[in-house]
Amino acid sequence: MLEQLKQEVFRANLLLKEYGLVVLTWGNVSAIDRESGLFVIKPSGVSYDTMKAEDMVVVDLDGNVVEGKLNPSSDTPTHLELYRQFKDIKAVVHTHSPWATSFAQAGREIKAYGTTHADFANRAIPCTRGLTKDEVATDYELNTGKVIVECFNNNRINPSDCPAVLIHRHGPFCWGKSAEKAVENALILEEVAKMAYRTEQIAEHGKKQPGIEDYLLDKHYQRKHGKNAYYGQK
Amino acid sequence: MLEQLKQEVFRANLLLKEYGLVVLTWGNVSAIDRESGLFVIKPSGVSYDTMKAEDMVVVDLDGNVVEGKLNPSSDTPTHLELYRQFKDIKAVVHTHSPWATSFAQAGREIKAYGTTHADFANRAIPCTRGLTKDEVATDYELNTGKVIVECFNNNRINPSDCPAVLIHRHGPFCWGKSAEKAVENALILEEVAKMAYRTEQIAEHGKKQPGIEDYLLDKHYQRKHGKNAYYGQK
Amino acid sequence: MLEQLKQEVFRANLLLKEYGLVVLTWGNVSAIDRESGLFVIKPSGVSYDTMKAEDMVVVDLDGNVVEGKLNPSSDTPTHLELYRQFKDIKAVVHTHSPWATSFAQAGREIKAYGTTHADFANRAIPCTRGLTKDEVATDYELNTGKVIVECFNNNRINPSDCPAVLIHRHGPFCWGKSAEKAVENALILEEVAKMAYRTEQIAEHGKKQPGIEDYLLDKHYQRKHGKNAYYGQK
Amino acid sequence: MLEQLKQEVFRANLLLKEYGLVVLTWGNVSAIDRESGLFVIKPSGVSYDTMKAEDMVVVDLDGNVVEGKLNPSSDTPTHLELYRQFKDIKAVVHTHSPWATSFAQAGREIKAYGTTHADFANRAIPCTRGLTKDEVATDYELNTGKVIVECFNNNRINPSDCPAVLIHRHGPFCWGKSAEKAVENALILEEVAKMAYRTEQIAEHGKKQPGIEDYLLDKHYQRKHGKNAYYGQK
Repeated sequence: MLEQLKQEVFRANLLLKEYGLVVLTWGNVSAIDRESGLFVIKPSGVSYDTMKAEDMVVVDLDGNVVEGKLNPSSDTPTHLELYRQFKDIKAVVHTHSPWATSFAQAGREIKAYGTTHADFANRAIPCTRGLTKDEVATDYELNTGKVIVECFNNNRINPSDCPAVLIHRHGPFCWGKSAEKAVENALILEEVAKMAYRTEQIAEHGKKQPGIEDYLLDKHYQRKHGKNAYYGQK
Repeated sequence: MLEQLKQEVFRANLLLKEYGLVVLTWGNVSAIDRESGLFVIKPSGVSYDTMKAEDMVVVDLDGNVVEGKLNPSSDTPTHLELYRQFKDIKAVVHTHSPWATSFAQAGREIKAYGTTHADFANRAIPCTRGLTKDEVATDYELNTGKVIVECFNNNRINPSDCPAVLIHRHGPFCWGKSAEKAVENALILEEVAKMAYRTEQIAEHGKKQPGIEDYLLDKHYQRKHGKNAYYGQK
Repeated sequence: MLEQLKQEVFRANLLLKEYGLVVLTWGNVSAIDRESGLFVIKPSGVSYDTMKAEDMVVVDLDGNVVEGKLNPSSDTPTHLELYRQFKDIKAVVHTHSPWATSFAQAGREIKAYGTTHADFANRAIPCTRGLTKDEVATDYELNTGKVIVECFNNNRINPSDCPAVLIHRHGPFCWGKSAEKAVENALILEEVAKMAYRTEQIAEHGKKQPGIEDYLLDKHYQRKHGKNAYYGQK
Repeated sequence: MLEQLKQEVFRANLLLKEYGLVVLTWGNVSAIDRESGLFVIKPSGVSYDTMKAEDMVVVDLDGNVVEGKLNPSSDTPTHLELYRQFKDIKAVVHTHSPWATSFAQAGREIKAYGTTHADFANRAIPCTRGLTKDEVATDYELNTGKVIVECFNNNRINPSDCPAVLIHRHGPFCWGKSAEKAVENALILEEVAKMAYRTEQIAEHGKKQPGIEDYLLDKHYQRKHGKNAYYGQK
């Protein structure tokens, strides 16, 4: 059942590790077959090193496991809610990638600081509100999905224009047109978060620092590039 | 003697390097056989590249070397004290992993900022008090263990709920149900410390920075994703 | 046509990835044959993993594709303008390398803080003014090139003395005497940016922090290096 | 001549790259044979990828090239001065490793913040005064060595107790009992600098940040470790 999709989801999960987005088992990818309304998702807590394509779990949009011997990711109800409400997405990725997660932990959106961000999304990457005590106590993972959808609805964000969100105090969810594209979006989000962090640090510094002395600047430049340069071989 | 445990401890020591938690010989793993009351520990100052499983040293809970030609890790008395006082732990890891060590050097606990931390421990990762001059002068490594135990007792922390501690001005100790799990905990601690650092930096920035200009944001987004996109191949 | 140059440009594009300057397809290298007035450039949005030397696109100085089945990089008009105005350069590189891009996003030049910078350029690495709304709306990539040239002319900078520039809110362009040298310059720029960032952070800290206690400093130094050292094997 | 020492110096130069301390050709290692008073040093500006052991250059303590077809490192006079004045050292390393260099660029010593530092040196790693305009104009590299020696003499530092120094606005020099040990010291210095940087940043933050909400902390901890944990497989 959905063997091709299982292969894609399996490989996309491995890509998470290849791209340096996860350690241990801290991430999961799913992808949906919109025709049948079934999606394929990583099993919970299984090592990327021993996992096989056939370990992927098939789940329907009511959350029932349709095929698979292992438990699906504990985040399955979040994926489910996103597939239900964001009709155009084909795949969902969740990681605890450190740069994006740090913004989530700080409860801050990732502001758009440059064209790398603009190549990715047409606005800041939003951070959801925190879940209430009740939302955490019951159906926590489902409510996580609902809070994402609420965030996008309240701010009139089209998920196709912004393929990522930060869960308050938690971490990012990303999506895309395929499992591979969703993982690429998770990678781009991490780069964008990293550069946003540094941009903010840079903007407040620098004017107060003395630079290199002029004569030392000139000496080093000239010994390497000047008429009488003596660095390197002739 | 304890050949299986030596293999486990040996491989767990190599895992420290694979996970990027140590440079040179800056780390050691031990694991205990609770039935015999003997534990196996890395020899002191031996390179991970040349070390073999049979180089592991067997020590009893009085600190006597029971088997092994090499000196055990100079931190052995700290491991010993942890095995004596924390009855449920099976393995101990010490590293100077840079993120956790930086918190230790600053003398600060690692606050719980998000769910990655919550997946690991049910509270902040504590930092011990500094050792006194006398505690450093005599039985330094044993006293290091005692200060850890004091910290957990005084704060009524169950070691099973918090598998890591920071030694003031020194670095982390972690533990777990097996040598491999203890090393995984050392890795998780490092990720949690890294994200706590960044969370603190992020929380104070950002609102003051200008973002990308709207028209530039739109241009880049549209040239890649818009109707008339011209990035990439058709 | 220009098969040798295609090989050089192809290999220089791969070098971007080897040096860790790009993820996915976020970079492009071109090189010019000054005699024929033709330059060779990476195709747009093609993966480094599947790209071949024969995929490189040949373009003339009016921007016409002279040879090649694929679209040239969407940044081609920027490269073009640099070749037209900076007569001594032979190759151009554009990346979104994270340290340099973060300075660009903050709209700040990279000040010269040390001899590593002085070995590279005889002044701060300038950051252009932002493009106007009109410049973004029409001929955006060409105007990007023009703003670079304006920046160098207004500040009387000789491109041979400063082989890099930051585009405001965007990222770096670098150049050199060959495709390989231009990529090396992109790598050096990234190192210089990273160290400038840290230099600024360091300069404001430190005096307020307590260091390690004297007795602990001495203990650790002596247990490893003193007369009665007991770290390691005898 | 000194073939064994050439091999050691050659391998130690490669180790710089393996340890991630240099990019391109930004580092050099030398080692001295105290009996003959000759030292072996890396040739200037030669790639680590193509360099061979026989390319190493033999120099005497007056700075004459005794054997070798290539120019020795342009930093040779600095190495020379260190061998002349620090009688107990056997090898010298110079890098632009980014953490240590950033402290040098900021003109700040690396304070001793923890036991990792104490395992390495018995005091702060000093930063020299800046060279004067005259010292830069004439015999720059020799004067660099003299300023290091002045720094150690004025502060009564024994080079055996502190195997590293930062040159103001430039970068680190390290030394040791062998070429390999000197490179290990360069690696340790980089780790120590990295952790000092982070220690300073950490010490000023944290108290102001809200942590994770208690109910969310508990939920995540319990879903993974509690009685009714539902993360992972049964």
